[in-house]
Amino acid sequence: MKPIAEIFSQGEEIVCGQTVDSNAAWLSQQLVELGFTLKRHTVVGDNLHDLIALFSEIAERADCCICTGGLGPTVDDLTAEAVSAASGLPLQFDEQAFAHIQQYYACRNRMMPPANRKQAMLPHSSLRIDNAYGTAPGFALPFKRCWFVFLPGVPSEMKQMFDALVRQQLQQHFPLQPDGLVTLRSIGIGESAIQQSLDDMPLPDDVQLGFRAAPDEVQTKLLFPSGFPEARKQACVADVAARIGDYVFAIDGLNEKQGDLLEVVAAAMSEKRYSLALLETASQGQLAAKCLGRDWLTRVEINLDWGRTAGSWQAGPGAGDCLQIARVWAEQLKAQSQTDFALVQLYSSSTNDYQDKDKPLVLYNAMATPKGVVATQLNAHGTLKHKQNQAALLALDLLRRYLQNKCL
Amino acid sequence: MKPIAEIFSQGEEIVCGQTVDSNAAWLSQQLVELGFTLKRHTVVGDNLHDLIALFSEIAERADCCICTGGLGPTVDDLTAEAVSAASGLPLQFDEQAFAHIQQYYACRNRMMPPANRKQAMLPHSSLRIDNAYGTAPGFALPFKRCWFVFLPGVPSEMKQMFDALVRQQLQQHFPLQPDGLVTLRSIGIGESAIQQSLDDMPLPDDVQLGFRAAPDEVQTKLLFPSGFPEARKQACVADVAARIGDYVFAIDGLNEKQGDLLEVVAAAMSEKRYSLALLETASQGQLAAKCLGRDWLTRVEINLDWGRTAGSWQAGPGAGDCLQIARVWAEQLKAQSQTDFALVQLYSSSTNDYQDKDKPLVLYNAMATPKGVVATQLNAHGTLKHKQNQAALLALDLLRRYLQNKCL
Repeated sequence: MKPIAEIFSQGEEIVCGQTVDSNAAWLSQQLVELGFTLKRHTVVGDNLHDLIALFSEIAERADCCICTGGLGPTVDDLTAEAVSAASGLPLQFDEQAFAHIQQYYACRNRMMPPANRKQAMLPHSSLRIDNAYGTAPGFALPFKRCWFVFLPGVPSEMKQMFDALVRQQLQQHFPLQPDGLVTLRSIGIGESAIQQSLDDMPLPDDVQLGFRAAPDEVQTKLLFPSGFPEARKQACVADVAARIGDYVFAIDGLNEKQGDLLEVVAAAMSEKRYSLALLETASQGQLAAKCLGRDWLTRVEINLDWGRTAGSWQAGPGAGDCLQIARVWAEQLKAQSQTDFALVQLYSSSTNDYQDKDKPLVLYNAMATPKGVVATQLNAHGTLKHKQNQAALLALDLLRRYLQNKCL
Repeated sequence: MKPIAEIFSQGEEIVCGQTVDSNAAWLSQQLVELGFTLKRHTVVGDNLHDLIALFSEIAERADCCICTGGLGPTVDDLTAEAVSAASGLPLQFDEQAFAHIQQYYACRNRMMPPANRKQAMLPHSSLRIDNAYGTAPGFALPFKRCWFVFLPGVPSEMKQMFDALVRQQLQQHFPLQPDGLVTLRSIGIGESAIQQSLDDMPLPDDVQLGFRAAPDEVQTKLLFPSGFPEARKQACVADVAARIGDYVFAIDGLNEKQGDLLEVVAAAMSEKRYSLALLETASQGQLAAKCLGRDWLTRVEINLDWGRTAGSWQAGPGAGDCLQIARVWAEQLKAQSQTDFALVQLYSSSTNDYQDKDKPLVLYNAMATPKGVVATQLNAHGTLKHKQNQAALLALDLLRRYLQNKCL
C-alpha cells in the first residue's frame, strides 16, 4: 500500500480566488512520482480556528501532508501558531533560522524589520528546512499519524526547498516504491495528433498512458509499475518515441534528465562551443529573454518594422517571399556577426490577425548553419501571448533539430 | 453576517496534479464579489466514499457550495450518485435534460452514445441547470444547511453556466451585501516596507488591511464593509496611498479599474500618442516582449556586449559612469529614432554577480523625454529570472513616473 498524502494551502488570496493555487498541482505531481497516493487538496484562509481544525483533521487521516503559505512575517501569517495550538508543541526561537533571516537582509544592505523575528519561531522539536531564496524557513514535524511539511507559498521558494531538501527527507521517512514515470517531451505537435499516432499501439495492461499539454510543450507520460523489466520498458518507450516522431526533443525518466527545450539546446551549444546570432520579429524579444545567462547567444536584433512592412504589402507577402527573405537575412546575419548559427524568425500575418485568438500566426524561420541554410514554415495558435511564446520556441526548435541531426 | 461558501472540485487529474484547478479561483472571485465569505476549497479524486463524506461534511458547515466535475458520462463520474447516497434523494430520469443531450448530438450529426443517458439522471427535486456548451446538465439542491450547485469541470462550460444562470439564482436565494475592495498596486517597494509605513496609521476597525506580493508588484488591499461612507473611504485610500508614496502606480476598486503597470503606461502612451525607443541590457528582451502588440514601442535594441564590457573594466564601472553613459545613450537613441521617449537600461554587476541569487543586480536607467533626461539607480534581487523581470519592470516604471508627473 502506498502512503496517503494530502496538500494543504493557506491564504486569503487563494481561498478568495485572487491567486490560482498552482503549488498544489506541482506538489501533487512530485508526490505521485515519489510513490504516494494523493487523496485531497484543501485551501483555507488566514483564520486560526480553521487552521487548527484542519491540521487536526488531516493528522488523523493522512500519512503525509505538504502545507504551503502562512509563514511570512505579517500578522495574518498564522501557520506556526496554529500548528503549535493543534499539536501542543510550544513555539521556540530558532537561532540558526534567525541568523539566516538577518543574513538575508545584510546581503541586501537592508535593515531587518522587527516583524521578521517572528519567522524564527518554530514548533519545538520540528525539523527546520532552510530557505535559500527568502526569509521564511520551512519546518517538518510528526503529528499523530501524519508527517507534516510546511513550506512558504511563494512558488520559487517552495519549489527550491522541495527540490533541495524535502524530496530526500520524504524518501528517508517513508518506504516508497515509486512507479517508473517516463515523459516524452515534444514541441510542434498537438495532444490529439499524438494520441492518434498511438491509437493502434499495443501497450502492456499494467502501463498507464497519459498526456499533458503545458504552455511550452506537450508531454506524453508512460507510468510503469515498480519492478517492470528494464529491457521491455526501453523497447516500449522507443516505440512510442518513434510513433510521435522528431517532435520529441527530450525523454525524461529513462536515463538522465534531459530537461526542457532550452536546456536541451543549451547543453549542446555549450558542449560544442557554438555561437548564435538571432533576429526576432513575432516573438519580439521573448526568445532572447529566455536565453538570459546563456553566453552562446552573442547578438540579438529585434525588427519591429517587419510586421508593419509585411502588413502593408498589397496582398500580404506570400510564403515563398517570406521564406526567401528569411534565408537571405540569416546568411547576412551569420556573416555580419561571425557566429556558427544565425536564426531569423519572420511571420506573414497582419497585426489584426496576430491579435485575433481565432486566427493562426504563420511563422517563417530560417537558420544559417556551418552546413548551409535550413528554413521552415509553421503555424502558431491561440492568444497573443501564446502565439508569441510559440514563435520563440518554434524558432529555437529549428536549432534543436540541427543539433540533434534531425535536419540537413 | 455574510453567508459562508465553499468550493469543491472533483477529479483524479486535479488531485494528482496533472491539471491546475483554475475553476476554484474563478468561482471564488465571483462569490466574493457577490458578497459571500469564502472559507474553504477542497479537491478529491473520483472515489464514491470520499465524495459522500465530503458532501455530508460541507452540508453541515457551509451555506453555499459550488461543486465542479464528475458530471460526465463515464464510470468514474460519480457526483450525482454520491449526492443521492449522501442526501437520500433518489436519482430520477429528467426528460428535458435527456432531450437536451439528444439535441446536442443531433446538432453535430452524431449518434448519442448510450452512456450519455446517465447524465439525465438527477437527484429528485433538484433544480436543473442547462448547459448550452456541452452535454452535462448541472443541478442545484438544498442539503441540510447548504445550497449545493453542481457544474461540469470544463472551464468554458462551467463559466458560461455560472454567468447565464447560477449568479442570478444565488442572488435570489441569498440576501447578499457585497463589500468594497480597493487595491493599491505598487512597484519598487517591498511588502514589509509598506507595512512599516502604515504601522502607525489609524484604520477604522471595520476596514480590513491585507498585502499580496505578486511577481510583478506588491498589492495593498483595503476591504470596506458594504455601506461604508464613500467620502470616508476616499479619504482612507488617499491616506494609505500618500503613506506608501509614488511607488503606487494604480488604485483599483475606487473608480474605474486601472490595471497592471504595463496597462497604466499603455493607456497614457496611447492617449497622448507618444512613442518610445528602448535599449535593453539586463532585461535582455523581456521588456520588449512584454510590450508585444503595443504600437507606441517603435524601436528596440538589445546590447549583449554591455555586460561583457562593464564586467571587463578593471574595478567595475562606478555608479557615476553608468548613469552618465545611460544618459548620453538615451539622448542619442531619442535623436536617432525620433521618438518622444528613449529609455536606456544598464547595469554594473558582473555576469557572476547577476547569476548569484544572493547578490543584488545594480540597475541604471535613463530616459530622454521632451523635457530633458531623467535617470535612476536601483537594485534588483533574487534569482536570475526575478532580477531580469525586475529590470524590465523598473525601467518601465521610470516611464510611468514621468507619465504620472512623478519625476521632472
